[in-house]
Amino acid sequence: MKKSVALIMGSDSDFPVVSKAIAKLEEFGVEFEAHIFSAHRTPAQAMEFAASAKDKGFGVIISFAGKAAHLGGVLAAHTTLPVIGVPVKSSTLDGLDALLATVQMPSGVPVATVAIDGSENAAILAVQMLAIYDDDLAKKLDAFKKKMQETVLSKDEELNKKLKETKA
Amino acid sequence: MKKSVALIMGSDSDFPVVSKAIAKLEEFGVEFEAHIFSAHRTPAQAMEFAASAKDKGFGVIISFAGKAAHLGGVLAAHTTLPVIGVPVKSSTLDGLDALLATVQMPSGVPVATVAIDGSENAAILAVQMLAIYDDDLAKKLDAFKKKMQETVLSKDEELNKKLKETKA
Amino acid sequence: MKKSVALIMGSDSDFPVVSKAIAKLEEFGVEFEAHIFSAHRTPAQAMEFAASAKDKGFGVIISFAGKAAHLGGVLAAHTTLPVIGVPVKSSTLDGLDALLATVQMPSGVPVATVAIDGSENAAILAVQMLAIYDDDLAKKLDAFKKKMQETVLSKDEELNKKLKETKA
Amino acid sequence: MKKSVALIMGSDSDFPVVSKAIAKLEEFGVEFEAHIFSAHRTPAQAMEFAASAKDKGFGVIISFAGKAAHLGGVLAAHTTLPVIGVPVKSSTLDGLDALLATVQMPSGVPVATVAIDGSENAAILAVQMLAIYDDDLAKKLDAFKKKMQETVLSKDEELNKKLKETKA
Amino acid sequence: MKKSVALIMGSDSDFPVVSKAIAKLEEFGVEFEAHIFSAHRTPAQAMEFAASAKDKGFGVIISFAGKAAHLGGVLAAHTTLPVIGVPVKSSTLDGLDALLATVQMPSGVPVATVAIDGSENAAILAVQMLAIYDDDLAKKLDAFKKKMQETVLSKDEELNKKLKETKA
Amino acid sequence: MKKSVALIMGSDSDFPVVSKAIAKLEEFGVEFEAHIFSAHRTPAQAMEFAASAKDKGFGVIISFAGKAAHLGGVLAAHTTLPVIGVPVKSSTLDGLDALLATVQMPSGVPVATVAIDGSENAAILAVQMLAIYDDDLAKKLDAFKKKMQETVLSKDEELNKKLKETKA
Amino acid sequence: MKKSVALIMGSDSDFPVVSKAIAKLEEFGVEFEAHIFSAHRTPAQAMEFAASAKDKGFGVIISFAGKAAHLGGVLAAHTTLPVIGVPVKSSTLDGLDALLATVQMPSGVPVATVAIDGSENAAILAVQMLAIYDDDLAKKLDAFKKKMQETVLSKDEELNKKLKETKA
Amino acid sequence: MKKSVALIMGSDSDFPVVSKAIAKLEEFGVEFEAHIFSAHRTPAQAMEFAASAKDKGFGVIISFAGKAAHLGGVLAAHTTLPVIGVPVKSSTLDGLDALLATVQMPSGVPVATVAIDGSENAAILAVQMLAIYDDDLAKKLDAFKKKMQETVLSKDEELNKKLKETKA
Repeated sequence: MKKSVALIMGSDSDFPVVSKAIAKLEEFGVEFEAHIFSAHRTPAQAMEFAASAKDKGFGVIISFAGKAAHLGGVLAAHTTLPVIGVPVKSSTLDGLDALLATVQMPSGVPVATVAIDGSENAAILAVQMLAIYDDDLAKKLDAFKKKMQETVLSKDEELNKKLKETKA
Repeated sequence: MKKSVALIMGSDSDFPVVSKAIAKLEEFGVEFEAHIFSAHRTPAQAMEFAASAKDKGFGVIISFAGKAAHLGGVLAAHTTLPVIGVPVKSSTLDGLDALLATVQMPSGVPVATVAIDGSENAAILAVQMLAIYDDDLAKKLDAFKKKMQETVLSKDEELNKKLKETKA
Repeated sequence: MKKSVALIMGSDSDFPVVSKAIAKLEEFGVEFEAHIFSAHRTPAQAMEFAASAKDKGFGVIISFAGKAAHLGGVLAAHTTLPVIGVPVKSSTLDGLDALLATVQMPSGVPVATVAIDGSENAAILAVQMLAIYDDDLAKKLDAFKKKMQETVLSKDEELNKKLKETKA
Repeated sequence: MKKSVALIMGSDSDFPVVSKAIAKLEEFGVEFEAHIFSAHRTPAQAMEFAASAKDKGFGVIISFAGKAAHLGGVLAAHTTLPVIGVPVKSSTLDGLDALLATVQMPSGVPVATVAIDGSENAAILAVQMLAIYDDDLAKKLDAFKKKMQETVLSKDEELNKKLKETKA
Repeated sequence: MKKSVALIMGSDSDFPVVSKAIAKLEEFGVEFEAHIFSAHRTPAQAMEFAASAKDKGFGVIISFAGKAAHLGGVLAAHTTLPVIGVPVKSSTLDGLDALLATVQMPSGVPVATVAIDGSENAAILAVQMLAIYDDDLAKKLDAFKKKMQETVLSKDEELNKKLKETKA
Repeated sequence: MKKSVALIMGSDSDFPVVSKAIAKLEEFGVEFEAHIFSAHRTPAQAMEFAASAKDKGFGVIISFAGKAAHLGGVLAAHTTLPVIGVPVKSSTLDGLDALLATVQMPSGVPVATVAIDGSENAAILAVQMLAIYDDDLAKKLDAFKKKMQETVLSKDEELNKKLKETKA
Repeated sequence: MKKSVALIMGSDSDFPVVSKAIAKLEEFGVEFEAHIFSAHRTPAQAMEFAASAKDKGFGVIISFAGKAAHLGGVLAAHTTLPVIGVPVKSSTLDGLDALLATVQMPSGVPVATVAIDGSENAAILAVQMLAIYDDDLAKKLDAFKKKMQETVLSKDEELNKKLKETKA
Repeated sequence: MKKSVALIMGSDSDFPVVSKAIAKLEEFGVEFEAHIFSAHRTPAQAMEFAASAKDKGFGVIISFAGKAAHLGGVLAAHTTLPVIGVPVKSSTLDGLDALLATVQMPSGVPVATVAIDGSENAAILAVQMLAIYDDDLAKKLDAFKKKMQETVLSKDEELNKKLKETKA
């Protein structure tokens, strides 16, 4: 059975960031479930979810949290599934606090950290993990990579047209 | 009944830092209990301890953790007791990661953060909290403040003796 | 007699931050007094206040200051009451200067530091300190924790309704 | 067929860090291959390796690099396999340069970043990824988690024996 | 034959920064070509360009990239031409990530780094490099330096007129 | 009457740094007095000293403090004499905390900050201030500047001798 | 004869910051002259000014510069007058670059650094330096300090009126 | 005539760093001259050298300086030759101050900055600049690049031999 992805955000204010990951997962046709579970305000729910995630058919968990972002670590403490952490930028320190609180995990309990507000990349990383043993998904990733490349190349072409027109 | 203090460290490697808080609590005659409970490796024990700490007679919890220091926040999530967080310096980033991961808590769940490796101050802060409604302890704090003052003044006197001798 | 809380801000420009702490203290029914006393412009008043705060019935002092935020330390130097420091973000450095100037106190004189602009948490921390020996207040904290939890859970429910509608 | 793990280090000076990941992979019985390929000195080899890694049976790539750590990104640019990046601390800036150069990847090409010098966690994360569709490996992760927990608990027990002896 | 300058940007969103370098090169009458080649999305094109740049008559390459800015390093890995790197400020961390990812290159493969968003200076630096063995260009640089000086001096004069009027 | 310089250190552990300033003041023949007064442990003494410093014949105060370095600000709050602040490096954060806590003073109460551990420069700056209206001292500063210049030039000469010998 | 103050800014874009220092000097009745001299674009003018400043009757120089703020150091290299440096915040890094480039001067050539954009404090510091041997100016500083104090106290009074009205 | 390279260090304490650049230039057979000229202690000599460097046959200047590293900027202010800046790590802040003070140059006067203590890369960058119009030097750079590549590949081979032996 195909594994799905869980997206857990620490606060509903993180949803604008989370929605980009959702869009990406939908693009790849990967099933997902999204929840607002706070490491500090609803720790019991966060833990129960993490502890039972594997049995419920999840293959990867993505956490989204800002400031002293403990959510990734708290989820990782209760599951052996890979946990991806997205540090979310808040009103001060430009997300550096969330980045360090997510990535600097002690030995034994990793959180796979992506860029500050790197929601799309979190989704792509989740797909890459699921694709290790799923060739259909791997092919979609190949296609995505090619399309990405073509977009850049066509933008380069466009730019050079404009530059030539300006010179001429 | 007098409340006691719980000292929870994330790893036994934090003990050299913790021991300074222990010495300070003993100096003030405050009862304490110390435990190694990791937010990530033994989350269940950390939470159970925090959840039952008030009923066991603890008045304050002090947490000690380095790197992505989630311990203070995890304990604070499960208790209404004040939680003091000591960010512990580890092999990189000079403790800045632990400081931010401890102090930048989201609204609703504070961790009272002291300086990096500020173990003695964590103990003194715990004593100050217990002394709010405990006049005996408050008097000990007054005496401690006076002694601290006298130590500095006698060092100033000593310094000025030496400087005069050098000039003479 | 119930102890009250003193809120000391370094400048009237800090009031928007302070007002969130005031609202929180009112929510918990804790008496308070607020003052503008600058560590550098009205040091005498700041010190006199700190020195007499215990006798006036205060149990906790909260300080609010930005930039080279000395206010917490200056107050703590003149009282044995616990002093909570709120680093206030100003026009540069995102509050990192205020955070370090508040939290990195030398041994002997702690300031219980909360997040940058963490005004609500400062109030909650003050309530937690007062609640150590005050069971009524402790019950209010329990209720607050439950309500906070319920708010998150209802938001999670709402989110999942929306997500289902979108999929359907 | 079981997928294996590729460990690519940017310089032979990174080997002391890499060896900890090797030990961990061996502990889990996961096959691996290790190479010294520099993003800047042997870019062709690095790219060819990444481009053919999937066909050669690798499921995950781990990169190790310090300073302007481009290796993870360069490998990720040429494969759809998940790439884990270990920022390696060098003679200045405590690894912050390597952390930012590894984690702050642009949209479309994620690198799953672990802590500075977080070599063991990189290996565990790789195992977690492989275990999504491999129940034997998942069981080993469960056992590892339990053992880790027991180690902490026995250290706590030991500590409390010592503390009691000191008090007695 | 006169050498020209290649301007390679990692994303079309960098064009507002790049355009300032273009204007500067045009001011000095230096031929240039501009491309959008991403180190991560079109690595093959980036490398091929770098590898053949010398034979195509380019004397200097300028790269523009933000976040984990690998572009300068990736280009430098495939050419012996001097590569100038412009760290581009993005939505978080104020360009510090791009600066460190550009400047902290390992031994053997330098990237000549200018200020964050220092596009004009990148162009001037490129002109300076080309002018080492090109006296016409060197004279233009002398004239540019003089003009720059005169602009500042006339602004100083203007300011002092205004200040005198205010005083009078 | 010639004004003298007061050197106030926050802790006797700062003396190795302070002694370099003392040596410099002695070199210039400027009278001084040194004290250990802590902003937090002996605030009364620190303030009284600052408040009466002008009447006692001091022209400049130099403060030395590490971590949350409040000493400079506390002294400046109680005097209109110029206060020079030397941020002292301590066991974490490389003196950045002390630098920000010293330099980021609010409007109205400046502290003239020098480099981290910049003790010699603090003394020279004090001499420069005293020399504004003291021509003898100004001449000594001229001589010092010339000597400094000659030292560098003779080192350059030496280096070039060595380099020629190596080449020969 | 009364010494005056020179205000040197690196660019006319710094004038909004400089104007606050001008207003403060006028408040104290201190004579001044303002110039736009860039350390990098008009180095000759900057140096000549510094070298002759003492003979022209200046007692203090204040420099204003952003980014790699060399102006303070360049001026200090050519005079024995005290040089005050104001780090000016620019479009990236929040002024941290200007702060470090101004304050971290090597031994022998101090720059008296104030807060980022701390223009008013630079003026006050200059007045304090001039007041060491000028009792009229010293009295004005006393009056300024008192007025500053009264302003804070009246704001405190106002606040408490409002708070009482709200409660009533 | 072949252009040579000038290496200017701010202090003789920088020589251990400078010597690595010297060795590299000798490896490429590029003529050089080395000097100790301080931007702050011997500014006249630094400027005169820069102003006359082009006429003396220099093609590139490399500056080495720590802390508030103004040397690169001061040299660049007086020449139209490309100036390479090597930020030198000193006793605090890990070279971050020197990096920012070197790289964040204002528009019009670039300094080509390399990594902290990146002395070898400064030399290679200088050679790359000189090689733009010097094919012999360009060939040496090609050979250097190949050799560098071979060194890495042979180290990879060696590593894999060892790993096989360990497994066997």
